[in-house]
Amino acid sequence: MNFLITLAFDGTAYHGFQVQKNANTVCETFQNALEQLFGVRYDVKGCSRTDAGVHALAFELNFHAETSIPAQKLPLALNRFLPQDIRVLEAKQVPEEFHARYSAHSKEYVYRIRNSGIDSPFDKQYYWRCTQPLDAEKMNQAAQLLVGKHNFSAFMSAGSSIVDTVRTIYCFSVKREGEVVCCTVQADGYLYNMVRIMCGTLVEIGYGKMQPEQITKALASGNRQDAGITLPAQGLFLSKVCYNIQEEGD
Amino acid sequence: MNFLITLAFDGTAYHGFQVQKNANTVCETFQNALEQLFGVRYDVKGCSRTDAGVHALAFELNFHAETSIPAQKLPLALNRFLPQDIRVLEAKQVPEEFHARYSAHSKEYVYRIRNSGIDSPFDKQYYWRCTQPLDAEKMNQAAQLLVGKHNFSAFMSAGSSIVDTVRTIYCFSVKREGEVVCCTVQADGYLYNMVRIMCGTLVEIGYGKMQPEQITKALASGNRQDAGITLPAQGLFLSKVCYNIQEEGD
Repeated sequence: MNFLITLAFDGTAYHGFQVQKNANTVCETFQNALEQLFGVRYDVKGCSRTDAGVHALAFELNFHAETSIPAQKLPLALNRFLPQDIRVLEAKQVPEEFHARYSAHSKEYVYRIRNSGIDSPFDKQYYWRCTQPLDAEKMNQAAQLLVGKHNFSAFMSAGSSIVDTVRTIYCFSVKREGEVVCCTVQADGYLYNMVRIMCGTLVEIGYGKMQPEQITKALASGNRQDAGITLPAQGLFLSKVCYNIQEEGD
Repeated sequence: MNFLITLAFDGTAYHGFQVQKNANTVCETFQNALEQLFGVRYDVKGCSRTDAGVHALAFELNFHAETSIPAQKLPLALNRFLPQDIRVLEAKQVPEEFHARYSAHSKEYVYRIRNSGIDSPFDKQYYWRCTQPLDAEKMNQAAQLLVGKHNFSAFMSAGSSIVDTVRTIYCFSVKREGEVVCCTVQADGYLYNMVRIMCGTLVEIGYGKMQPEQITKALASGNRQDAGITLPAQGLFLSKVCYNIQEEGD
């Protein structure tokens, strides 16, 4: 049986999802919980690596296991063995060939910016703060230049071994809700730090340091120097992963 | 000159506002910042004591000082000397006789309840979690029984030396926003743990353990046993203090 699990996690204490030597990761913590429940250490496939400090509202992973526990009982059962900063929201049985990463056709991220002269005493691990006034409407208009199929190599941090840097962005919106500016992007995939660099570029446009045309220039040149700053991890949330699957009965 | 300061703070790390021996308090932390800025230790009057772990969206305090720093410069100046979990939002000059506590005609508190079978991995210091489904509409109707001038002694924890237990509640609303149920109450004053006991009573009504008539009974008897449980501090926020004052120029 193949189980698809939806997790929410506060990434503050973790070095991302993917297992690493000598680092606390979400995957390893989840595998520990699985092992406590099933008595077996299962291999787990995540929808994404996610960077250290990045959060998830709905991270998807799958694992194959033979068990008589019905899928709908897994959230409660697994949450007993997980720390409070990782929660299983949902579990369902999926076709054997389903893979949380390769079966996804798109992923959505949200980047939260607190745009205020005076900082908030709350929630500091869930946003990045920008003190300069941001024009969210201008940022939203500029974001539309990123929508579509493009070579995003200007929006990728050094250190990635990826060769194909073409991705398709399906939608990108920037909205202000009081002092918080939310950047929401949905794409078929992302390069290393791509969301954080795109949002950093929009921020520089939002306070007038860059012109929107700079996005067109960066897309054409493929040069990292033509894009904006890389925003820090703590404002970033993986918010949705989309699949075309038929759920199996459980 | 008399300055009125509006603070927001995350109360998690503090034993309330009021200075205590051998305990970290908001007042003492604020006085330390004042002393760093002015070189003098000023006496500070808070609008309320607030319990350990209680938060504030807008806590008011005043102090008298002779200074050439204009009020509008104080937020930035003081925030440099305050830890991130306490922020000065606003400062203004008020009449000499103004007192943050005695000049207040009403205070508003919000109690946040996360009503979900599965907990959230985020924000755990900012809500109390209730796993039983709550009928927020029924809670709201029951809350109206508390509105008005009543003897609230059934809604006061032991250990208070207060003699006059009559208070007036101006409004009380319970609203659901997704998984979060917010109880908002405005009154001319509060007894020890009064908001947390009133909200605990509404919760017991909301999941059917108590009937709304129990509120009428508790108000009539003045007996603590007739009211519901005391909810924990971390869901409680002081959200607004109302004054009738003419601001002085600064």
